Amino acid sequence: MPKLPDQVRIVEVGPRDGLQNEATPIPTAEKLAFIRALVDAGLRDIEATSFVNPKRIPQLADAADLVKQLPAAPGVTYSALVPNMKGLERAIECGIRRVAVFTGASETFVQKNIGMTIAESLTTFSEVAAAALKAGMTVRGYVSTSFVCPYEGEVRKERVLEVSEALLAMGCDEVSISDTIGAAAPSDVFSTVGFVLGRVPPMQVALHFHDTYGTALANVLAGLELGITTFDASAGGLGGCPYAPGAAGNVSTEDVAYMFNRMGIACGVDLPKLATASLIIEKLLGRDLPSRQLRRLKSVS
Amino acid sequence: MPKLPDQVRIVEVGPRDGLQNEATPIPTAEKLAFIRALVDAGLRDIEATSFVNPKRIPQLADAADLVKQLPAAPGVTYSALVPNMKGLERAIECGIRRVAVFTGASETFVQKNIGMTIAESLTTFSEVAAAALKAGMTVRGYVSTSFVCPYEGEVRKERVLEVSEALLAMGCDEVSISDTIGAAAPSDVFSTVGFVLGRVPPMQVALHFHDTYGTALANVLAGLELGITTFDASAGGLGGCPYAPGAAGNVSTEDVAYMFNRMGIACGVDLPKLATASLIIEKLLGRDLPSRQLRRLKSVS
Repeated sequence: MPKLPDQVRIVEVGPRDGLQNEATPIPTAEKLAFIRALVDAGLRDIEATSFVNPKRIPQLADAADLVKQLPAAPGVTYSALVPNMKGLERAIECGIRRVAVFTGASETFVQKNIGMTIAESLTTFSEVAAAALKAGMTVRGYVSTSFVCPYEGEVRKERVLEVSEALLAMGCDEVSISDTIGAAAPSDVFSTVGFVLGRVPPMQVALHFHDTYGTALANVLAGLELGITTFDASAGGLGGCPYAPGAAGNVSTEDVAYMFNRMGIACGVDLPKLATASLIIEKLLGRDLPSRQLRRLKSVS
Repeated sequence: MPKLPDQVRIVEVGPRDGLQNEATPIPTAEKLAFIRALVDAGLRDIEATSFVNPKRIPQLADAADLVKQLPAAPGVTYSALVPNMKGLERAIECGIRRVAVFTGASETFVQKNIGMTIAESLTTFSEVAAAALKAGMTVRGYVSTSFVCPYEGEVRKERVLEVSEALLAMGCDEVSISDTIGAAAPSDVFSTVGFVLGRVPPMQVALHFHDTYGTALANVLAGLELGITTFDASAGGLGGCPYAPGAAGNVSTEDVAYMFNRMGIACGVDLPKLATASLIIEKLLGRDLPSRQLRRLKSVS
């Protein structure tokens, strides 16, 4: 058996990456109930929303309102995506302590997604990160389309390292290397993430998988074998990507937590309580969420 | 990157393990169309049916009729499950060249499933295997509930090795170590299968996963890392188990083949052609099959 970490950290991105793709408007009070249930299930890192232009993603137009009402909970870190300086200003006003910036390793995807070249995004975000740090916040960076781009195909690992290093150099404390369309297999993880780890310590790398082809947990295993200890996931497997045709939701928090629990790798998540959280959103969306573990829990309860 | 095999063999169990759990009767002609499409998609090992008591599994009551009409195809091996000597006699009559016997590593599960103790099943199957070998057939053995039993919980790896060795000793050329309820995680594979490999060569071990909790492909990766090169799978993720409450279908052939293809591990499967096969059954069942890869193919076509 390969040597694996005995403890991991799950970054719950359901309230942001999950909900941003849902057309059904979720009332702020329900989002707060969802987040309270996530905290109750043991999640300690929750990406709560995004200070994106409300016209672009109406679902997250209540970001400021939501952040102001986030339940105070010891040991819980909430974060919010900020797409630019204006978003950061809104974030600072609400008092959130951690922000995330989002760029990627594929030029076409980044331009379609955030309307900037990768180079422009790095310039913008180095200003954002500097201001955030100055305001006493911490910053996370996303490297989207780190394996396959829906427009350009295969993504070069050198590009992933380059963007990761740029994000870390501007003050991000971790980069989330993301398989935005869920096309990666473990060989991609060994190759690309392994390459990044030649220059970046594993504690600064998070992995972010979508489960389009069912490979997400295999990719998580590959990440564990590389010594990675931070994994993004979304309650119920909420999510998708409006700029990545055909992409499925994030790997579900239930499924990763089931695997970690079964492997004796501490992740702090209580599965029945997590189901309570996911079912709040499932009920509002009126369709089954993709998590296999959640479906199983429903079938036996 | 761990050293992985560069070629694997998929044993397609959809027509047997998949269909046996479906209440909707599938006409023999449609099963044959399904099997022809599987062959066309590149599958070379197909478990076509079971010579079980037709009263027990009416879906497979057409076993003899089906076997007589199986499309001759160079390099393709068809097999059929035989539960006892009577089943073997029917199998011999139809001219199938490979049979499989089914026992397990958990006493309660085996008794509920096949109505014999494990010891009784090994006695029965050693007679069946001897007669099959004498008739010039080859024999595969299943070790069901090799990790977790729905009745007894955790299964001892020593028991899995013991049953595996008994099956090989009676003349089986491979044992399919099965996670019948889909509860295993990669740590289980490393531990139990690793233990079996201390005494049994990897070429004689197949792994058989169900995807109840989404861990199946992670378990396949763990198997690959142990040097296993044979994996059971079911087109579309058909399947389940009537004696294993809550168990989901077999890992889908689409999902394993996607992962193998992406990893550069030759498995011979053409994914669009495989979808053609799965859609034959999906249409007759009138519900979406669980394969993520199949759903993705449908969403973009």
